[in-house]
Amino acid sequence: MDDCRLILLGFGAVGKGVARGISLKKEMINEKYGINLKIVAAADSSTSAICQDGLDEELLLKTKEESGKLLSYPEYGSDISGIDVLDAVDYDVLIEASPTNIEDAEPAKSFTLKAFADGKDVVTSNKGHLALFYKELIEAKEKAGVDFKFEASVGGAMPIINLCQETLASCGISSIKGILNGTTNYILSRMTTEGMSYENTLAEAQQLGIAETNPTQDVEGIDAACKVVILANSVLGIDATYDDVEVRGISDVSLDAINLAKEEGYFVKLIGEVSEKQLKVSPRLVKKNSPFAIDGTLNLANVTTDLADDITVMGKGAGSLETASAMLTDLINIIKDK
Amino acid sequence: MDDCRLILLGFGAVGKGVARGISLKKEMINEKYGINLKIVAAADSSTSAICQDGLDEELLLKTKEESGKLLSYPEYGSDISGIDVLDAVDYDVLIEASPTNIEDAEPAKSFTLKAFADGKDVVTSNKGHLALFYKELIEAKEKAGVDFKFEASVGGAMPIINLCQETLASCGISSIKGILNGTTNYILSRMTTEGMSYENTLAEAQQLGIAETNPTQDVEGIDAACKVVILANSVLGIDATYDDVEVRGISDVSLDAINLAKEEGYFVKLIGEVSEKQLKVSPRLVKKNSPFAIDGTLNLANVTTDLADDITVMGKGAGSLETASAMLTDLINIIKDK
Repeated sequence: MDDCRLILLGFGAVGKGVARGISLKKEMINEKYGINLKIVAAADSSTSAICQDGLDEELLLKTKEESGKLLSYPEYGSDISGIDVLDAVDYDVLIEASPTNIEDAEPAKSFTLKAFADGKDVVTSNKGHLALFYKELIEAKEKAGVDFKFEASVGGAMPIINLCQETLASCGISSIKGILNGTTNYILSRMTTEGMSYENTLAEAQQLGIAETNPTQDVEGIDAACKVVILANSVLGIDATYDDVEVRGISDVSLDAINLAKEEGYFVKLIGEVSEKQLKVSPRLVKKNSPFAIDGTLNLANVTTDLADDITVMGKGAGSLETASAMLTDLINIIKDK
Repeated sequence: MDDCRLILLGFGAVGKGVARGISLKKEMINEKYGINLKIVAAADSSTSAICQDGLDEELLLKTKEESGKLLSYPEYGSDISGIDVLDAVDYDVLIEASPTNIEDAEPAKSFTLKAFADGKDVVTSNKGHLALFYKELIEAKEKAGVDFKFEASVGGAMPIINLCQETLASCGISSIKGILNGTTNYILSRMTTEGMSYENTLAEAQQLGIAETNPTQDVEGIDAACKVVILANSVLGIDATYDDVEVRGISDVSLDAINLAKEEGYFVKLIGEVSEKQLKVSPRLVKKNSPFAIDGTLNLANVTTDLADDITVMGKGAGSLETASAMLTDLINIIKDK
């Protein structure tokens, strides 16, 4: 049985989900694929825990929960952080789960390029570096001859990139239309069903932890636009970057507009659209009986293909363990091919 | 560039779709995977066309269309048929597209076991041998050390088996609930929206070619039950066969029952359910706003997982090219791993 040594960079909601997911699934992965997963380093924003023999996933979670810092991990806590962790220990795959940064894509971009340069495979949940520097990343990955997988970057647990690339491998894909942001779908759904104003619904979503304190990335469509760029590049082969997307969010969608649409049998949804003709995020009317009429924080994608006609998929677009599940699937698909 | 030599057994709607799909996609497959697909034999129920250098897909389609028999294929038409075709020519992968037979699973079972015994990979769209003899087939496949893929047997173009096994590889799957038969979904949808009786709607579906002249397999739930068995075995790892499924079809669903459900905000749908607890096909009420409320001939499956929560997928459950697309994806996933 072979070891697969992992470095986990980022220990927020997604990173914690990965630790929990590995704790839950390492036995299954061992039995099914003959691979022994070992987290040899895990890092939060300023500290880490590093041990060549492998860290205990549950102890990582407990340490972070209790002290807020991985530095407190018994015996192996360290003040090494960031990119230096990648030099501190031997590893096979980088699990990159740092927060998305849509300004300069750091630190995800540096982490990823460094791993490629060192000949390591990377699994990421990050949208920033993919949305801003897709081409550069893929060129570096190909030069290095490594694997690079990023299912979790679009739609959380909802499979879409692997679905298109592998599960629909025979099909040409001409467009994808989807609800790619759960926070805005929650807000629009609640405005529709409860007749609440945008401001009050946003406040409610913030209280529930569905919207962030600074909700800009979600409500202004930035998050969805990143996903549009990633799908354009990875599925449709369009050489696009963030600036190519026409973006309008939901902050100016009025309750009046929602009510008027509702009277005519329509809902207002924030739709991301990916095709050769356009890359766009905007509030759109969807028919009340269409698959797009999903409520709550669900994500949905409708894929138009040549051979298989339309395929629609939906699932949880966020969530700690849910997003981690997509990263673990990517990891399994990397190791089973070795 | 390597050749991949195919034998195509069965030249009805699915077999024709495969020939058309290969004609459309062989260049893409060649460019992307470096594999040259060649149909070296194609057989209908009593004749065939056989040529070690490869047959022309469009000429196969034209021959069948014009004469009804592949025997008329210029120069290479033959009266060899059935299992003998597998001995008549060298090949790499059997594409098994014969009609489903739920009595004794022939000829699909013999075709498939013969190919395994000869060390060949098999892609099938057939439900009969999988629903009746799953365990025997998998044991024979494993003994032979070959690939065996059957995405097209459940849900046509809708990805479900590969979706669960590969795209959700990290997840444990505890149940699948789905609309697994397009014909019955069409009939129930039309009864609901048009207020037509079962008998009249069935007659309409037969006129449109959506229901067969003998509609028993669809309307009595037999087709959906086969799919339940295949999912139970392949996704949930339950050792089940057709007799383990509790089956009730839609032929006794009255318009009154549908109207009553509708008044209360529900639709009647034929639901297949797969879990450790039960394997069942029966008419069930679904909420009018739920994803299950899809109209027409669409198929849908809701997969309950441990890590990713619920994932739902929908797509065309039938159609010549649509079903063939699933077989071509299986074929690509076999050849790209060689």
